[in-house]
Amino acid sequence: MPLKNKKIVIPEGFVFSSAKAGIKVSETDDMGLIFCPSGAIASGVFTKNKVKAAPVVDAQRKLRRTGRIYAIVANSGCANACTGIQGMDDLKRITDSVASKLGVSEKQVIMASTGIIGKRLPVRKMLKQIDRLVIELGRASPVDFARAIMTTDRFPKVVSKRVKVAGSYGSILGIAKGAGMIFPNMATMLCFILTDIPIEKDAMKRILLQSVEETFNCITVDNDMSTNDTVLLLSSCRSWGRPVSLKDRTLSAVQDVITEVMDSLARMIVSDAEGASKTIEVILRGAGSVSEAKKAARAVAGSLLVKTAIYGADPNWGRIMAALGGSGIRLEQEKVHIKINGIRIVKNGIATPMLPKAKEKMKNSKHVIIEIELMQDGYTAKALGCDLTEEYVRFNAHYTT
Amino acid sequence: MPLKNKKIVIPEGFVFSSAKAGIKVSETDDMGLIFCPSGAIASGVFTKNKVKAAPVVDAQRKLRRTGRIYAIVANSGCANACTGIQGMDDLKRITDSVASKLGVSEKQVIMASTGIIGKRLPVRKMLKQIDRLVIELGRASPVDFARAIMTTDRFPKVVSKRVKVAGSYGSILGIAKGAGMIFPNMATMLCFILTDIPIEKDAMKRILLQSVEETFNCITVDNDMSTNDTVLLLSSCRSWGRPVSLKDRTLSAVQDVITEVMDSLARMIVSDAEGASKTIEVILRGAGSVSEAKKAARAVAGSLLVKTAIYGADPNWGRIMAALGGSGIRLEQEKVHIKINGIRIVKNGIATPMLPKAKEKMKNSKHVIIEIELMQDGYTAKALGCDLTEEYVRFNAHYTT
Repeated sequence: MPLKNKKIVIPEGFVFSSAKAGIKVSETDDMGLIFCPSGAIASGVFTKNKVKAAPVVDAQRKLRRTGRIYAIVANSGCANACTGIQGMDDLKRITDSVASKLGVSEKQVIMASTGIIGKRLPVRKMLKQIDRLVIELGRASPVDFARAIMTTDRFPKVVSKRVKVAGSYGSILGIAKGAGMIFPNMATMLCFILTDIPIEKDAMKRILLQSVEETFNCITVDNDMSTNDTVLLLSSCRSWGRPVSLKDRTLSAVQDVITEVMDSLARMIVSDAEGASKTIEVILRGAGSVSEAKKAARAVAGSLLVKTAIYGADPNWGRIMAALGGSGIRLEQEKVHIKINGIRIVKNGIATPMLPKAKEKMKNSKHVIIEIELMQDGYTAKALGCDLTEEYVRFNAHYTT
Repeated sequence: MPLKNKKIVIPEGFVFSSAKAGIKVSETDDMGLIFCPSGAIASGVFTKNKVKAAPVVDAQRKLRRTGRIYAIVANSGCANACTGIQGMDDLKRITDSVASKLGVSEKQVIMASTGIIGKRLPVRKMLKQIDRLVIELGRASPVDFARAIMTTDRFPKVVSKRVKVAGSYGSILGIAKGAGMIFPNMATMLCFILTDIPIEKDAMKRILLQSVEETFNCITVDNDMSTNDTVLLLSSCRSWGRPVSLKDRTLSAVQDVITEVMDSLARMIVSDAEGASKTIEVILRGAGSVSEAKKAARAVAGSLLVKTAIYGADPNWGRIMAALGGSGIRLEQEKVHIKINGIRIVKNGIATPMLPKAKEKMKNSKHVIIEIELMQDGYTAKALGCDLTEEYVRFNAHYTT
């Protein structure tokens, strides 16, 4: 759902700006800057695609070498992917300029890009905007920044939370971008989670990995992995209190809130998927292992035949069964139970007389929940997706190289 | 392409009939019978989906126990899948009736069904037609039989070849059914390959497995595996000559012709895919292993973003690169070369200036060939698919349970 004028909480120690460099044809901003004057403890998760965009390669390298990041410069309109050595040079010219204007080391400035693959960044145009981005730091809101990194998104994605951890208050702010091409192990998706809660580096890594696994890695829109996916977690460590460590009792509390923020962003991304009319949530229970549970949930949420059936408000349990059976997991057909939006449509592998009722319910729902019980063992997984519409096809057939 | 009034050669020892039982709403035949009075040596390959339709379970069991099959009774309109024990009983009532009317054992009559999942066979209606099917044996052509097993197919799929093996003539006839839901390891696809060339059981198994692997297992339409896929190879052994054995020099010659027949059928299925406007052939070379070659070829042919790009006649090399990178195989971006319909669009991982020319060529082609060279090692694979259109979505959103 688009933002509902909720008040956004900004964690202490972060400022934002945005500008229009003309990377995109449209009249909107296409560059954004996040600055943390005190330097932020940072950790990242990146696409598993073997074809990685220049900014992904660069950010991975920088995060391995330094634990502290001062700035993130982001752009939409151009992914800087499949651009070879030139792409790395283009990136460095921009991060060099940002770093020198902010008075920090280039090694502590991360770039994130999204947009068309295979085109070089319009470096000259972009360099012209960097003065402005630096001067105007603090004038833009997180929503302005979120708008500047939108590509096919229909709305900016920002979530924030104020929490009390171990007696003192802290804030978490999440900004994401993403609409199409979303698959487990992420997809054209950028996400920045900023907090002022002090967290030790090791604890941060653990929190980030687990939260991503439970949220963004459950999304499947069109089964393709992007070259640019990036999730960064940054802490300015500016709120009171001892840093959260791996041994700390507060670790799981902080992780829960961060997971909650990411879950909201993941759901926003799915609901904004190109041409989607309904979102799909598959809750799979009773699988023989964690990996089987995930595999099966994703197979159902990612099946084109299931996706088109849901678009047609058709409780097509046969397609769900076929997708389960085709996923390669252990199952016994006669032990499978399926509910759609709370209505049991399959009992012991066979349809119930409730199909017409389920159809009625699906017609009137924007969010279709498919609950599957396999009765193999106790493992559970979730997958988020959306239906497949004519609009998706039109859109992707004409969004060009 | 639909049949072009080519003369069809019928192998000796097989007769056909077809009838309208009213399983489907349409006014066309929906049952067919193939009879081999002398009994045929038979072998089968079936869906790997864990959810298997009753006829698949039954046929696998029968082929394990007997090497000789007298009849295949097939129907469209109802897959007899997800029908539990009742589905097995329904099937047996039909094969019992066919067997007794033909004077053969029920254990040597195989049934093949295709159509809607989760509905029971209308047994009474079907039993009424069996007399007629038996009496009219010999009156129908293979094309009539092919029409009777069509579901969403737009045209019947029949291919035949007359060949000279070890000095004597023999014939091969292939009949297939399939349009949507096609993925490696097959999909709602029935295929019957009939021959009069004598082949030993072991040799037959080998020929069938290898031919299927090189043809039907290269097809990907929508990444879903069906519950009913069946490929049967039957020989009446009626042409002259010594039976082809595993050690025989003629084995590979026979296999080549059977592969050729299956390849033609596979291409017909792809060109008939629901709502497809173009077919796609991915030829992947230079992979690090056979399995990586297959994986990568299928990932490209199955990528929704590649499929929609091809529909839009867009040589979107970035999406091809992303699909390759996302497939999990070993690759080095800067060693990748890509051609579309003979035009080199990517050299060393970067776009060439030939993109506009490739676009022109794609606009005017019904068949788009994507050649990819990975330069890892010498392994090659092929994948066949089709583009993704609005029509596909409309179709699958409204073809119901």
